[in-house]
Amino acid sequence: MSVNTSSVSLGGKMDKIVSLAKRRGFVFPSSEIYGGLASCWDYGPLGVLLKNNVKRAWWIDNVQTKMNMCGLDAAILMHPQVWEASGHVNCFQDPMVDCKSCKKRFRADELNTSVCPECGGELTEARQFNLMFKTFMGPLEDASAIVYMRPETAQGIFVNFKNAANSTRKKLPFGIAQIGKSFRNEITPGKFTFRTREFEQMEIEFFCRPDESDKWFDYWVNERYNWYIEHGVKPENLRLREHDKSELAHYAKACKDVEYNFPWGWSELEGIASRGDYDLKCHQSSSGENLTYFDEERNEHFLPFVIEPSAGADRAALAFLTDAYDEEEVPNDKGKPDVRTVLRFSADIAPIKAAVLPLSKKQELISVSEKLFADISRICPCEYDERGSIGKRYRRQDEIGTLYCVTVDFETLNDSQVTVRYRDSMKQDRISISELTNWLKDKIF
Amino acid sequence: MSVNTSSVSLGGKMDKIVSLAKRRGFVFPSSEIYGGLASCWDYGPLGVLLKNNVKRAWWIDNVQTKMNMCGLDAAILMHPQVWEASGHVNCFQDPMVDCKSCKKRFRADELNTSVCPECGGELTEARQFNLMFKTFMGPLEDASAIVYMRPETAQGIFVNFKNAANSTRKKLPFGIAQIGKSFRNEITPGKFTFRTREFEQMEIEFFCRPDESDKWFDYWVNERYNWYIEHGVKPENLRLREHDKSELAHYAKACKDVEYNFPWGWSELEGIASRGDYDLKCHQSSSGENLTYFDEERNEHFLPFVIEPSAGADRAALAFLTDAYDEEEVPNDKGKPDVRTVLRFSADIAPIKAAVLPLSKKQELISVSEKLFADISRICPCEYDERGSIGKRYRRQDEIGTLYCVTVDFETLNDSQVTVRYRDSMKQDRISISELTNWLKDKIF
Repeated sequence: MSVNTSSVSLGGKMDKIVSLAKRRGFVFPSSEIYGGLASCWDYGPLGVLLKNNVKRAWWIDNVQTKMNMCGLDAAILMHPQVWEASGHVNCFQDPMVDCKSCKKRFRADELNTSVCPECGGELTEARQFNLMFKTFMGPLEDASAIVYMRPETAQGIFVNFKNAANSTRKKLPFGIAQIGKSFRNEITPGKFTFRTREFEQMEIEFFCRPDESDKWFDYWVNERYNWYIEHGVKPENLRLREHDKSELAHYAKACKDVEYNFPWGWSELEGIASRGDYDLKCHQSSSGENLTYFDEERNEHFLPFVIEPSAGADRAALAFLTDAYDEEEVPNDKGKPDVRTVLRFSADIAPIKAAVLPLSKKQELISVSEKLFADISRICPCEYDERGSIGKRYRRQDEIGTLYCVTVDFETLNDSQVTVRYRDSMKQDRISISELTNWLKDKIF
Repeated sequence: MSVNTSSVSLGGKMDKIVSLAKRRGFVFPSSEIYGGLASCWDYGPLGVLLKNNVKRAWWIDNVQTKMNMCGLDAAILMHPQVWEASGHVNCFQDPMVDCKSCKKRFRADELNTSVCPECGGELTEARQFNLMFKTFMGPLEDASAIVYMRPETAQGIFVNFKNAANSTRKKLPFGIAQIGKSFRNEITPGKFTFRTREFEQMEIEFFCRPDESDKWFDYWVNERYNWYIEHGVKPENLRLREHDKSELAHYAKACKDVEYNFPWGWSELEGIASRGDYDLKCHQSSSGENLTYFDEERNEHFLPFVIEPSAGADRAALAFLTDAYDEEEVPNDKGKPDVRTVLRFSADIAPIKAAVLPLSKKQELISVSEKLFADISRICPCEYDERGSIGKRYRRQDEIGTLYCVTVDFETLNDSQVTVRYRDSMKQDRISISELTNWLKDKIF
């Protein structure tokens, strides 16, 4: 069992982010007490909030607020014929070579030598290695029982095209969106949560008339590029890259990637592909079910064309985390020069919206503070911290990107107001307790 | 590959629910165009909203609003030693027999005969069959590469106990909560989405001082029983069942199930177990890591005791759906006797909160209606329907449990008001458009 790659350095800024992620509970190496499991990561208490915010923002913007969209949540285990029809059983593979001497296995396209890089031994010819995890369903472990852990959520949408269209009575153009786990037995995963064998996708299949597919491709490229910026990614760290003809699958008409400038370089967050009717045609042919759409306006039956914006939830979360990371020189609470680490998340992506901080452990302050926590936590994730100096508590909240620190002090007992301190400007306002939850709702939602 | 069991009748009311679920887009048989996959189901456009609401309600009530709780999202693929330590590799199995003649396999404890129920052939001795799905990680398919698809989310919490405690600085008693998919290669799944091989769990491990575990067990039994009622389940359909000693695992101190009265009988929604320090002890022993907690107040090191409320998200969604299902005799829009099917979901569980219905397809009404949809859909899931008589559209919304139908009529163009029609009472109010979103926020949140 290979060990976790968490100890591999990804460079200064990235190392700081990986370290903060572990220390503050964004991301832990999976099964760490057993030495970790290669390229698997667990989201900690803050990480699960961050990733849920990413998924919720995607869902609200791409499904809930779009009249021509609907959602789906297909099972991870699907009929094996799905993956034969889609081409994954035959084509979803990497060329691998074995060392005849030490028996280690390598990706043929990543080797620079014709001998084993580990021991210098002779290598076999390259053989194809399928990237789908397979398992057996039911009591027998034979070929008839093989099922695959899906390598993408997309096929769950295609095989449900008719069910979704019929149950929602949607007319073209319309799309089906899905968020869910996928699994690929990558030979060389790595770079923290960027490339992992288990990952979560946010995929859309948008079905349209064939002659309108170019228009909808442009629409979705634009929508998806802007989405990252609307939720806080700096424009200078985001770019579009068009695939050239040699990169395109034979059936694909066009593909553009949204790339983010990670500390290790520009890398793909999302691909938007114009796939024609390839997928529905494959499933129609393989299943024998008629998957054509009847266009009442044009009085025509045809297979819709598909635009596929396919994003990674883990990659998006990592991009938001990386982009939010900032260090600035400010005096500490004793007036000495200090460095403040702050995650400058946008309001909807920030895992924690507010923190309640009683200035002392006096029971009167604690009572007010606990009541405040109860009220605020009904509307948004809220922390409560009564330990350490108020300056240190502010820094702890800055480091996880908390938007507002709400301090309860002795004055609060007289005027029923609290001090609200802003993460980015560090300015402070006095706000009445009775107005606080509505004030927060206005700021956050 | 065995076919889906969707055609098996579960009795009158359940058949109606399964049929409605497919027709309106709550639940589809998985890979249906390929004949389905045994006991796998896909959540359709409404089903994914329903299940997300169940998960969000659970999260807000059990994690977000509780100061002594935090969340986690561990990977499905974990280090195989986790499952050795937990006992799943050796003990998580069913006794199976094979027919020597037709080679079919059966659960030994479900057979009434000593011969094959299919062909009358002779049966083998019973052998243990492990319920974990296994697969291979990395390029080699050998014993060293075996990993399991987790059969429960709980172990992801135990192995992260220290990481979660350290990063959140929480003191006992505190709990870690997690929502996620688990997989069990059940030999006899069935009953729609109630027992499936792929399912989603909502689990809490609540860590406390050993001498306080009875108190916390009672606390969580009470919390979890009331949770279903608070979100709309009728009290007469819910009960607690205490496990007798013979049902308890050797390390368990107590266990109670929350059961729901499904159309086929009382069945478990959730189990609350008092597990002592069994799990942490196993992982401490197997990993060699010290998992004890230092209690500053008592100046003691010890392994915390654990209370585990373990619920099924699919089962909860099915219980809410079943409990919400109602038929009532009301006149149709022509005054004739008719039966209205209505899903009486509570406000937070209902998949769709509002529907915008323009009375005619006149452009002035459509423009107002589209603007209303845009405003409402930013705050909650909203449908838009302009097809058919208004009476039929009300019925379509009733059947999926939509809370409020918002009708835009010609009067709207004069008075900027809309008709809001209530699902349960079918009464109607005129409400000003400018107040509508705030009115909805008050009703829903």
